[in-house]
Amino acid sequence: MVRRIKCVIAYDGTHFFGYQIQPGKRTVQGELERVLKRMHKGKEVRVAASGRTDAGVHAYGQVIHFDTPLSLSPEQWKKALNAQLPDDIVVRSAAETDSAFHARFSAKAKEYRYNVWTAAERDVFRRHYCAWHPYPLHIDAMNEALVPLKGTHDFTGFCSAKTAMEDRVRTIYHAEVEADGPMLQFRLIGSGFLYNMVRIIVGTVLEVGQGKRSPSDIEWLLAAKDRRLAGPTAPAQGLYLWRVYYGDEHFDQ
Amino acid sequence: MVRRIKCVIAYDGTHFFGYQIQPGKRTVQGELERVLKRMHKGKEVRVAASGRTDAGVHAYGQVIHFDTPLSLSPEQWKKALNAQLPDDIVVRSAAETDSAFHARFSAKAKEYRYNVWTAAERDVFRRHYCAWHPYPLHIDAMNEALVPLKGTHDFTGFCSAKTAMEDRVRTIYHAEVEADGPMLQFRLIGSGFLYNMVRIIVGTVLEVGQGKRSPSDIEWLLAAKDRRLAGPTAPAQGLYLWRVYYGDEHFDQ
Repeated sequence: MVRRIKCVIAYDGTHFFGYQIQPGKRTVQGELERVLKRMHKGKEVRVAASGRTDAGVHAYGQVIHFDTPLSLSPEQWKKALNAQLPDDIVVRSAAETDSAFHARFSAKAKEYRYNVWTAAERDVFRRHYCAWHPYPLHIDAMNEALVPLKGTHDFTGFCSAKTAMEDRVRTIYHAEVEADGPMLQFRLIGSGFLYNMVRIIVGTVLEVGQGKRSPSDIEWLLAAKDRRLAGPTAPAQGLYLWRVYYGDEHFDQ
Repeated sequence: MVRRIKCVIAYDGTHFFGYQIQPGKRTVQGELERVLKRMHKGKEVRVAASGRTDAGVHAYGQVIHFDTPLSLSPEQWKKALNAQLPDDIVVRSAAETDSAFHARFSAKAKEYRYNVWTAAERDVFRRHYCAWHPYPLHIDAMNEALVPLKGTHDFTGFCSAKTAMEDRVRTIYHAEVEADGPMLQFRLIGSGFLYNMVRIIVGTVLEVGQGKRSPSDIEWLLAAKDRRLAGPTAPAQGLYLWRVYYGDEHFDQ
């Protein structure tokens, strides 16, 4: 009997060439499939994820699934995988699910967070886990800029020009930035995010925070649909795939 | 005119073979002297520190000094060094001092902190910055165990058997452990610490926390002066040289 196993995993993206498998590169998918192959006596096991993450991008709540003939309990899967995975990937939870579940196609929404360290002083302990942006920022103006992004829009102006996807309409349910001392955290929940979309939103909203742009620029940038007009792509190390929602929880908050 | 410059530096010890210079190894002192040599047109500049730290051990407040004929302001020193140092070392402050000051010999006390992550779940983002010890711990028993360490004692029983130093009498002014959710932090202030002393104290007190030992063991271990009887040396990645006191601040708290 084949069982489908769903896992929530966290990883430190610093030393990975992103999530997706690439020959000769260290990737999260590559590490997962290497461990599963060993557990399946050399048989390849494909892992599906909710989506890719780029090099240097972290995950606190990436979701994956795979099919297996092995009859381990969820707790045994968690233990066995954690015993063999490298120390920068951890399985936070495992569950048996039905074959109708798909980590990517069943996803209803995703939450990303983005950390910015704004102190004048570089923090050696946060260098891989935050962007460093040592400038005074107007938090209220930044939150004002995030408001027009909420709702359903064509996000062509806020994704990489290299985006292959034709349909650039997405819905943002939640968009907010909070300060805790010199640490800022952006929190974005949406139906889906295009390539570099969170990082371009953050890069643009930081320009608003610095007073280089007005919060009202956002509406105009959405309408213009030209990525060159938005701000820079914020660096990878501040970004976390925080949670994937499958419709069993409230995310419209 | 030769000036003596004192700097407070922080470093992430993860990718260093410790503080002290060693041929062919990446060390904190090696990086500092490499940058200073370049700033002095190829002339060697020796850096003195408050003390060494081992491979993987961090510093938030290591203190160094060096002598220079260059006439830069403290703020210029800080900027110039930070512009050239790698991203895992940062100069937090710089000051001009007199030739009577010595980073090591003028130190009156040192503060070390030690972080322990006690959650059942491994945290990929903290793996280089805490020890992971996923066991229920009695904080009160641990604080009780720390009490007899305070004061002036021969710490032979709590230092590496490889300690070269003959005089093992040190004074501990402050010794405490606090929990903030699943994160524990030990805080130790003393006149000085012998080789591995903080890590052996932490390893032993964690055994008390787990109920493997009684808090009253500590007095007996101090008297026995035999390192083999104390607990294991806690791992390097939880340890931070937090602050060096030069007598101009209160540390006896």
